[in-house]
Amino acid sequence: MERTELNTLGEFGLIDRIKSKFTNQNAETIKGIGDDAAVIDVGDKYMLVTTDILFEGIHFDLSYTPLRHLGYKAVAVNVSDIAAMNGIAKQITVTIGLSNRISVEAIDELYEGIKFACESYNVDLIGGDTSASASGFVVSITATGFVDKDKIVYRNGAKPNDILCVTGDLGAAYFGLQVLEREKQVYLANPSMQPELTEKEYLVGKILKPEARTDIIHELNELGVVPSSMIDISDGLASDLLHICTQSGVGAMVFEDKLPIEDITMLTATEFNVSPITAALNGGEDYQLLFTVKQSDFDKIQKVSDVLPIGYMTQDTAVQLALNSGGTAAIKAQGWNHLR
Amino acid sequence: MERTELNTLGEFGLIDRIKSKFTNQNAETIKGIGDDAAVIDVGDKYMLVTTDILFEGIHFDLSYTPLRHLGYKAVAVNVSDIAAMNGIAKQITVTIGLSNRISVEAIDELYEGIKFACESYNVDLIGGDTSASASGFVVSITATGFVDKDKIVYRNGAKPNDILCVTGDLGAAYFGLQVLEREKQVYLANPSMQPELTEKEYLVGKILKPEARTDIIHELNELGVVPSSMIDISDGLASDLLHICTQSGVGAMVFEDKLPIEDITMLTATEFNVSPITAALNGGEDYQLLFTVKQSDFDKIQKVSDVLPIGYMTQDTAVQLALNSGGTAAIKAQGWNHLR
Repeated sequence: MERTELNTLGEFGLIDRIKSKFTNQNAETIKGIGDDAAVIDVGDKYMLVTTDILFEGIHFDLSYTPLRHLGYKAVAVNVSDIAAMNGIAKQITVTIGLSNRISVEAIDELYEGIKFACESYNVDLIGGDTSASASGFVVSITATGFVDKDKIVYRNGAKPNDILCVTGDLGAAYFGLQVLEREKQVYLANPSMQPELTEKEYLVGKILKPEARTDIIHELNELGVVPSSMIDISDGLASDLLHICTQSGVGAMVFEDKLPIEDITMLTATEFNVSPITAALNGGEDYQLLFTVKQSDFDKIQKVSDVLPIGYMTQDTAVQLALNSGGTAAIKAQGWNHLR
Repeated sequence: MERTELNTLGEFGLIDRIKSKFTNQNAETIKGIGDDAAVIDVGDKYMLVTTDILFEGIHFDLSYTPLRHLGYKAVAVNVSDIAAMNGIAKQITVTIGLSNRISVEAIDELYEGIKFACESYNVDLIGGDTSASASGFVVSITATGFVDKDKIVYRNGAKPNDILCVTGDLGAAYFGLQVLEREKQVYLANPSMQPELTEKEYLVGKILKPEARTDIIHELNELGVVPSSMIDISDGLASDLLHICTQSGVGAMVFEDKLPIEDITMLTATEFNVSPITAALNGGEDYQLLFTVKQSDFDKIQKVSDVLPIGYMTQDTAVQLALNSGGTAAIKAQGWNHLR
């Protein structure tokens, strides 16, 4: 039999390949594969469904990931996907794959983090699956949520001249991970060394315990602003902006000097000899919201703390970064392309 | 830190432990952990949500599991959980964990099986997650479905004197697995041997490609019968009947001579020197429906082909098997108790 390596397709190629094979048969199914969450018509409202899986050794390293934080993060990233449709998550199911390395106390810690997130985001744990896993530790969460039908936001609604906005700051989670990896190597070389993380606390917090921006969804709702398109930044601003552009059939111009990057991120970028702009564009795991609004909503948007306009959408489909040095550079996608 | 081994809790102990920590906060959440599917109030109807994960090396062995069948089965077992609430599944999300051992052609095969099941059960694939996995191959599916509010069936509604019914036949999947394991050992000992499975086709089909009994749900609906309690048999009749009994606060008397066991299952039980009754009670993976009905529904139930009354529910909470030899034996639970 022929054998094509998955690496030749990459993540997005694989998703496109799967999507092309399926068509929806039920009238209730409004949106399937291809956005932050699927959309089901349940009568008065739309129900949103999203799912994310976290594998030990791929998404987290138990040597520096407290299980409490892992539990919190696993919930937050799903709540974030529901937020990216302009919806509010209400329920989650939690599935775990376990080996005998994991103690009851460790599971308790994981679920303490999950519970803390459930309380923080007002979400109910309604079910799941617990299974033995032949290999590593696995956490898979599915979230359901609701949105008013006239307020749903897809990736494909951006129009030329819409303003591109982002919440919070970018690149911090990327450097948080670099710091943890460095401390792990130091520890492995000399186990008597204690990690020195105090000054990097902000960065480490961003990778270990990101927050879903449901606060922004509530604020936009109160202001009566419905974004024309939205996505949450999981793979990196570049990759996620390209999803909006491709699906909306538009381009974008992003201003380098508008990218929100914290001082500690800047400092740490110098330390690691990595461009902070590259980290902001391609670092990923920020879980901030990236969205577009009509120009007429600009005044309202400026009232929302922690939302920053960083560019605008264009008729021309090029997706570009306007450089501080003058000129532009093309913004390119990322995603996993290599499996072990 | 104290360390308690998970094996001391077992699967059901762990689920109870998790359940005890959480309370639901949203009015829409009707039923959380503890049934075949969670129940969410979405207005006119109830939405049902269920999830199941399958790990390579635990739930399937790629050396004798065609990926097409694995895909079909992964969908069917979730559709079966929705059916066990008297509902009809409408959507699924599919999450896969991949290593570089898996080719694009293998993924295509998996999704062909998933597609075949989607068409067979009229279910839409609406999303999922594709991730690298540090180790084995993993398939996690979440299904959503609907049921009329006045037709939902829980595990906890059985009443004394209700009739206990089961669909199809039992124990075949258990022996299908034994046959596959035996042929694998023969093959490993001598790779030139071709497996001889023709006469065991029925058994092997039951483990590799079980069907969800949505046909029974439609038939019951047409007859106007709403079971008083229902569960699908995944862990084995014994274990699943005990869930109904515990949650309903009743006992049961099951007649050994009523247990539906096919001739080929009987024959193979002799071959493997395993009691066919033990396989029927504790084999698991049958994915048949186990349900109770009021005595007044008995006449209607007899019109449904492939449904068999096998006993009745009792005020006394003992759960017993009435033996052919006279006397009774206690029916005991199973579930996973040992992790590797």
